[in-house]
Amino acid sequence: MRYQEFTLEGRNAVLEAFRAGKTIDQLFILDGSKDGPIQSILKEARKNGTIFHFVTKERLDQMSETGKHQGVIAYAAAYSYAEVEDILKIAKEKNEPPFLILLDGIEDPHNLGAIIRTANQAGAHGVIIPKRRAAGLTATAVKASAGAVHYVPVAKVTNLVATIEELKKCGIWFACADMEGEIMYKQDLTGPIGLVIGGEGEGVSRIVQQACDFRTKIPMFGAIDSLNASVAMGVLSYEIVRQRLTKKE
Amino acid sequence: MRYQEFTLEGRNAVLEAFRAGKTIDQLFILDGSKDGPIQSILKEARKNGTIFHFVTKERLDQMSETGKHQGVIAYAAAYSYAEVEDILKIAKEKNEPPFLILLDGIEDPHNLGAIIRTANQAGAHGVIIPKRRAAGLTATAVKASAGAVHYVPVAKVTNLVATIEELKKCGIWFACADMEGEIMYKQDLTGPIGLVIGGEGEGVSRIVQQACDFRTKIPMFGAIDSLNASVAMGVLSYEIVRQRLTKKE
Repeated sequence: MRYQEFTLEGRNAVLEAFRAGKTIDQLFILDGSKDGPIQSILKEARKNGTIFHFVTKERLDQMSETGKHQGVIAYAAAYSYAEVEDILKIAKEKNEPPFLILLDGIEDPHNLGAIIRTANQAGAHGVIIPKRRAAGLTATAVKASAGAVHYVPVAKVTNLVATIEELKKCGIWFACADMEGEIMYKQDLTGPIGLVIGGEGEGVSRIVQQACDFRTKIPMFGAIDSLNASVAMGVLSYEIVRQRLTKKE
Repeated sequence: MRYQEFTLEGRNAVLEAFRAGKTIDQLFILDGSKDGPIQSILKEARKNGTIFHFVTKERLDQMSETGKHQGVIAYAAAYSYAEVEDILKIAKEKNEPPFLILLDGIEDPHNLGAIIRTANQAGAHGVIIPKRRAAGLTATAVKASAGAVHYVPVAKVTNLVATIEELKKCGIWFACADMEGEIMYKQDLTGPIGLVIGGEGEGVSRIVQQACDFRTKIPMFGAIDSLNASVAMGVLSYEIVRQRLTKKE
C-alpha cells in the first residue's frame, strides 16, 4: 500500500524517476503526444505496469505545480509500508536492542506524523500501527513527519495483540503507557522494548494492555488527566534514550 | 484580552453566571422582553458594564446551540491572559523554584495548546508568549490544550527579550532549546528556570538566544533536523521534572 505524495513534472524528471527505479503510481500525458521522449516514457510505463491517462492541456495545466509540465505529469509513490521483520532487521544491523513504537488507535494524522518524526530522532527502529481505527500514512501525516517517514519504517498489522505476542518470542518486552503504571524513572527501559502508546481518546485498549509486560507512567502534576499522544510518546521515548545513554557510559 | 468560548443559554444560566462573578462579554436578549428575570439580567449587565443587544427571535434561534435559549444568550469569557507577575506568584505560593515556558514564534495553535497542556502536567507555573508573530489563545489552541488553559496562566508580552532581562533580575536562568547546545542530561536544570522554545520554522530567534544564559539540547539520532515544537517542549520539560524529582530524593 502506498500513498501518492510527489508530483513529478516534465519529460526528464519523469523518465529519470522510471530509470532510478522509483515507483510511479499514475502518469498523465498530453493527448496526441508522440515524440521520442514521450514514447520512452510510455515504454517504461508499460514495462512497469504504470497506469497512464491521455489528458487535455487544460487538465495538465490545472494539475501542474510548476507550470512547466512539458506534456507529462507523474504521481510518484513517496513511501511504502514496511514489514515488522524489516524493523527488527534494522535493529540487528545497528547492533542495538530493538526499540519499537506501537500505536493503539492514534486517529489524528498530525499526531502520527509527529510520532514518526520523534521515533526517527529518538533512534527507534520503527513504528507499528494497526490496520483499523487508526490514522495511516496520509498526506497530513507525511507532512507532520517533516520527512521522517522516509527514514522510519512504518508497519501496518491486522492484529496488534498477535504482533505483540509474536514479538515477545523474540525477547522484546512491551511497556504500555498508562496512568496507573509505575513512574518511568524507576523502571529499567534499556532492554529490547516495544513502547505502546494509546489513542487520543481512550488510551491503550484493554486487550492490548493485557498483552503488555508492564505499564509505564509519566509523572503528572496537572489538573487535567493526560498529555497529547505525540508529546507522551516523545517524553517516554526520551526516557528510554536517557537510560540507554547512561548505561553505555 | 479575552476569547469568547462559552455560550450560556437560558435565564437561569445567565443570571447564575453573573452572580458567580463570571465575566460576560456579550449579552443577547429577545427584543421586547420585560419580565422579571430579564430585568434582573439587565440590571446585572448594567452593573458589570456588559454590552447587550436586543435581537429578534430568529437571531436567537440561529445562535442557540441547545434550542432552549428562553430569550437570552450570553457569551462568557472562558479565560483571560495573565501577567508575568501572576506566574511568579504561583511559584512562590507553591514554594517551588520558578519553572516558566517561553515561546518564541510558535505560530501553530495546535502546538500552543499542546504546550499549555504539557506545561500543566509537568508542573510549570506559566507560559509566556510574545504579542507578535505568535499563536494566541484561539479556539483551536484552547481545544488542543484539553482544558489546561484554565489552569496554566498564559502571559502575553510585547518584548520577549525585555521580559527575559527583567526576570533574570529575579534569579531565573534562561535555557534556550537549541541544536548547538549541551546535551540536557549533562546540565543542572533544577534551579529557577525559563525554558525557551522556538517556532516551528526557524527555532529561537538570534536576539532571544543571546538573551539566554545557556543552550540546552535534546540528543537526536535522526536523519531530519528537529522535533515538533510541542514534543521538544515536552521532552525538555520532563528532563527538568526528572532532575527536580531526583534532587528531592
